[in-house]
Amino acid sequence: MAYPVVGVVGGGQLARMLAQAAVSLGVRIRVLAASPRDCAALVVSESEFGAPDDLEAIRRFASGVDVLTFDHEQVPQSILETLESDGVVLQPGRLALRFSQDKLLLRELLETAGLPNPRWRRLDGLAAAGEEPAALSRMLADFGGELGWPLVLKLSRGGYDGRGVWVVSDLTAAVEVVESVRLAPGQKWLVEEAVEFDRELAVQVARSANGEVVGYPVVESVQRDGMCREVYAPAPDLSDSVAVAARELAGRIAELTGVVGMLAVELFATAAGRLLVNELAMRPHNCGHWTMDAALTSQFENHLRAVLGLPLGSPRLRTTATAMVNVVGGEVGGSPDDWRAALGADSEAKVHLYGKAFQPGRKLGHVNLCGDDIVEVAARARQVADRIAGAGA
Amino acid sequence: MAYPVVGVVGGGQLARMLAQAAVSLGVRIRVLAASPRDCAALVVSESEFGAPDDLEAIRRFASGVDVLTFDHEQVPQSILETLESDGVVLQPGRLALRFSQDKLLLRELLETAGLPNPRWRRLDGLAAAGEEPAALSRMLADFGGELGWPLVLKLSRGGYDGRGVWVVSDLTAAVEVVESVRLAPGQKWLVEEAVEFDRELAVQVARSANGEVVGYPVVESVQRDGMCREVYAPAPDLSDSVAVAARELAGRIAELTGVVGMLAVELFATAAGRLLVNELAMRPHNCGHWTMDAALTSQFENHLRAVLGLPLGSPRLRTTATAMVNVVGGEVGGSPDDWRAALGADSEAKVHLYGKAFQPGRKLGHVNLCGDDIVEVAARARQVADRIAGAGA
Repeated sequence: MAYPVVGVVGGGQLARMLAQAAVSLGVRIRVLAASPRDCAALVVSESEFGAPDDLEAIRRFASGVDVLTFDHEQVPQSILETLESDGVVLQPGRLALRFSQDKLLLRELLETAGLPNPRWRRLDGLAAAGEEPAALSRMLADFGGELGWPLVLKLSRGGYDGRGVWVVSDLTAAVEVVESVRLAPGQKWLVEEAVEFDRELAVQVARSANGEVVGYPVVESVQRDGMCREVYAPAPDLSDSVAVAARELAGRIAELTGVVGMLAVELFATAAGRLLVNELAMRPHNCGHWTMDAALTSQFENHLRAVLGLPLGSPRLRTTATAMVNVVGGEVGGSPDDWRAALGADSEAKVHLYGKAFQPGRKLGHVNLCGDDIVEVAARARQVADRIAGAGA
Repeated sequence: MAYPVVGVVGGGQLARMLAQAAVSLGVRIRVLAASPRDCAALVVSESEFGAPDDLEAIRRFASGVDVLTFDHEQVPQSILETLESDGVVLQPGRLALRFSQDKLLLRELLETAGLPNPRWRRLDGLAAAGEEPAALSRMLADFGGELGWPLVLKLSRGGYDGRGVWVVSDLTAAVEVVESVRLAPGQKWLVEEAVEFDRELAVQVARSANGEVVGYPVVESVQRDGMCREVYAPAPDLSDSVAVAARELAGRIAELTGVVGMLAVELFATAAGRLLVNELAMRPHNCGHWTMDAALTSQFENHLRAVLGLPLGSPRLRTTATAMVNVVGGEVGGSPDDWRAALGADSEAKVHLYGKAFQPGRKLGHVNLCGDDIVEVAARARQVADRIAGAGA
């Protein structure tokens, strides 16, 4: 039976887990990876190799697939335009992807739509910042006065997992950061208030090419050094009104951006019950890895269904409480013996590894654990994850 | 991290689903397939090609893996012996595999151990059956008198999914079958009573190379034309005493045979509550496909853990009732449109396809559905499976 072929740009862990979901659906996956050692290239039968900003590599790759989707979100708009005019089906589409590629565009979109942003400003006219230190310093001082210190400085494009984001406590530190970074073409500075949040929430929706939308339960995420470390699903002690507001927000953003596939919206929740949009991603996301073992349909399966215009699967939770804990490389890497011991440490833990070489601070996998009490399952998952990661995780 | 490499002999759907489970564990899978179009070869990154009875192909393949296990159970004992003397780690081992390769040896083993067989006889001295029709006919008549008609004729080796098994209603039919088959070297005839069973049950255990054993819940299987069509987990309305007896039986067979990996024991359950061993398999088995979505650890993950001597995962059921319905090709194959429609027919159905070309009567995949009421979830799963399979499934 000739089922469709999905091409994934990028060969990271998201592509790897998409491929795992594709096996069951009968969908063929091809991956455009940077190297044969990429997480996905290690496990799929059909890999091609090339950089995500290499027009000819992507064109060649795209010519053999029915739908092109993304593990790596930063494919340049100019390449996406060429692919579109070649007739390649991009899901999510080029226009939608702008909002996950460019934080400034996202802020503008949300503001225009009246959706809740942190207070933010654009640091304009700094293409040649070194030449006008006085103007730069004045602007940052103004923003600091207006938004309060510390401030958050963000590059509009190219950051992830805490990269491209700086929290600065005063004007001197702010000027130092801005002067130290050479902006890439099209890159801009964004200044945001440092939101005093109570906790971080995340909410995912899948939106199919046929317009169908399903929403996953709202989760709580715990970040460390800008990197997601743990996720609790559903978010513990979440009021119904906040849960409804978060899901409505994600649904509106899905419609506004026209995303097709999985959309993740990361939110700051304040003690007063306010929600502010932090970031978003238009692909499967770390905040949804728990769905592999605790939702009826994983984010990976629903991403594939969505980009192929198939009916979506149920996002329903299968358990009372689920914890996802990332396996992050410690100072000394976990050995195969640690891995064996970790697999025996809890017979109910679901381990998902990415096939990556060890490196301190690197995401190597994640562990899901389901049960009745979130504190208990998080502690159990953490124990397994830390064991795999090695000493000092 | 240098995690182990598991080699799988045979590239069918079991190898495909083992590979899917291996992705999460971080275990590398290599498959020895017959062709690049085999179910597993379609999806794994490392395939080699060769027949399961080609000594040199298997030796070459085995030299690159840490453990050799089997999708295809019929690798000749002579080849297994050579591999053993090469120092290859076979899991399950050669001696254990004899009992899944040879139905006559299994009957003898169970009889010796006092475990419950159907009544059976060995049809000896028929290597040249055509030459002594009178003796053959006399023996079959005796067995018919003793065990009652109809009788079941089985080839000791090489049969699966109803092949190599004939139910014959009288002596004439029996003689006709026996005279029509040319026995392969080492193949023998086995005659069994046609058990009047109430239903068929199956029970699986995983036995690790380190000796650990876990048992899955007892399930009911529904066969048609000798092929498994549906499985209900746990077996509905099963008395505790029968459940315990079935699991003890499987545990004893695991120990007796020394199997390492998954063991499936198919049982006839009589109205009087007796259990008789029908067949067994020393690999993941169709009766355990439900575990992919409804047990904490799937049979595929536990097979990998077992053959690698890793601690086993919990076999616990995650739901009240689960139905597994095979997707079996109908008279006219399902189209991609049927597939799309089937994926939308029930948002809670979990579809698992094997990437096979359509053929009437061929197992193309299976559908799992979990819920509270087995009759309801079976009907829902059947609807999805039949839609994918095409008209007349």
